[in-house]
Amino acid sequence: MTDTVISSATREVVIGFDRPFVMIGERINPTGRKLLAAEMKEGDFSRVEADALAQVAAGAHMLDVNAGVPLADEPALLASAVKLVQSVTDVPLSIDSSIIEALEAGIDAYVGKPLINSVTGEAEVMERVLPLVARAGAAVVAISNDETGISEDPDVRFEVARRIVSAAADYGIPSHDVVVDPLVMPIGAMPTAGRQVFQLVQRLRSELGVNTTCGASNVSFGLPNRHVVTGTFLAMAIGAGMTSAIMNPLHADVKAAVMAGDVLAGNDTNCAAWIAEHRDRSAMGEDTPANGRAAAGGRRRGGRRARTG
Amino acid sequence: MTDTVISSATREVVIGFDRPFVMIGERINPTGRKLLAAEMKEGDFSRVEADALAQVAAGAHMLDVNAGVPLADEPALLASAVKLVQSVTDVPLSIDSSIIEALEAGIDAYVGKPLINSVTGEAEVMERVLPLVARAGAAVVAISNDETGISEDPDVRFEVARRIVSAAADYGIPSHDVVVDPLVMPIGAMPTAGRQVFQLVQRLRSELGVNTTCGASNVSFGLPNRHVVTGTFLAMAIGAGMTSAIMNPLHADVKAAVMAGDVLAGNDTNCAAWIAEHRDRSAMGEDTPANGRAAAGGRRRGGRRARTG
Repeated sequence: MTDTVISSATREVVIGFDRPFVMIGERINPTGRKLLAAEMKEGDFSRVEADALAQVAAGAHMLDVNAGVPLADEPALLASAVKLVQSVTDVPLSIDSSIIEALEAGIDAYVGKPLINSVTGEAEVMERVLPLVARAGAAVVAISNDETGISEDPDVRFEVARRIVSAAADYGIPSHDVVVDPLVMPIGAMPTAGRQVFQLVQRLRSELGVNTTCGASNVSFGLPNRHVVTGTFLAMAIGAGMTSAIMNPLHADVKAAVMAGDVLAGNDTNCAAWIAEHRDRSAMGEDTPANGRAAAGGRRRGGRRARTG
Repeated sequence: MTDTVISSATREVVIGFDRPFVMIGERINPTGRKLLAAEMKEGDFSRVEADALAQVAAGAHMLDVNAGVPLADEPALLASAVKLVQSVTDVPLSIDSSIIEALEAGIDAYVGKPLINSVTGEAEVMERVLPLVARAGAAVVAISNDETGISEDPDVRFEVARRIVSAAADYGIPSHDVVVDPLVMPIGAMPTAGRQVFQLVQRLRSELGVNTTCGASNVSFGLPNRHVVTGTFLAMAIGAGMTSAIMNPLHADVKAAVMAGDVLAGNDTNCAAWIAEHRDRSAMGEDTPANGRAAAGGRRRGGRRARTG
């Protein structure tokens, strides 16, 4: 049992083994969103607010906040975004930047125990980010690449993760506050991308005892009907033991696959979340007696067993 | 590498490790389908024909044929159904009955090497079914229950499977012609049902070296939006190494999850089947430049890496 507790002023979220998968909303990120980037640069955070509320309404347990607008004052933007989001929702945040000063500003603006996104296995990055994480008493996303880039060898990525966990311990950060991102490549470009992640997640869980996360959308880059690929990937990752992801809960296919993954991994007690999600929806109609065959699937084996025995 | 080859007069299907998942259409089964049962009893096989054609059109690689109509002459019905289906499609068949005489009649009517569905670990059933399988040079579905019923202990179910594989060998049936069904329980009634199957499939594959199948619809019995649960289960099972299932390819959610599972397990070379499936479909629209964010997900990590490095 490894529990990573992340908090706001009034709410705690636990990323942990055999618990419901933690969905971290990915939307508040100007990378590739020209309109959002232009608005944030002008100090207009109305879209950030709308994205925060929509993702929480869709079921996000946490929100990732990134203010990486090119040629802008990222520390100031990230601090403003963090304050704004905390003023409209109480879910805990992941503070996301590759700029150390922006992480610092975001942490200073944050109330609670944040998830810092991220540190890599690069020595220089670890030396700068880990003291910050330790000082803030935060948790941190550890991305399993280093100075040599992202290895295609999952064993190398595992060793990078082990090295980050070990370095974090040197700064007093317990392994349960290190959430490893095994790095998800586009499956269209690298056919082994899925299997690598599933195997890495199993090893990270059984050998290092750490929680895991990933930027899920990456896996389906360039493919048609990509949200089904992303959702299916997440369900398979849940099957392998992944415990959280930075993802878009507004995509119905992605969210449904994650929730079904929780059901099938036994992490949704009594299927309560799944049943609540579908109560009063037309989807319920699928199981009415009018559709005899749909209901009959469950009786097929039973019927045969009765006749065999 | 374990290849189970099933054939009709003109077509072979291979169930095997690291190959595309084999979808065996479940529809031709009167259990719980009153209208179909009544028609079959009257010798009207028009619905059987329609179900065969529809499932093959939807992508079924094989079809399961069951003629278990209560109080009917099941051997004669199964033989007729097998002949009819083989006259309208060339996909190989799974001949499905708990009645030994019906299996015999179905085998006699069949052209090619069928999959016999099924044998259990019950001594009496093995003694009757396995000689039949050996004589026909067929493959067989081995259901991992025995005289004591279906154990909730996956280790017991594994041992039953091992015993059937061993008994089959005594009759000259090689282990690559035994496709084990680890038995899928409704997840709504048994929260461990998913994890048990995933663990069993991994062990059956790594320790016994056998292919696996299951009656997939059972897992979602009684739940809302059940096709998403079934599809997600199958994708997770593919992640664990399952190689075929008796399922309904006419349900779009189920089929899409299986195909995405193949992509993510690296079993759909160059994502060719996935891309062909979605060519000229409106789903392609999701990835057009007009939807900036959908395409941007894949660039997020890259953008950050560029700035970090």
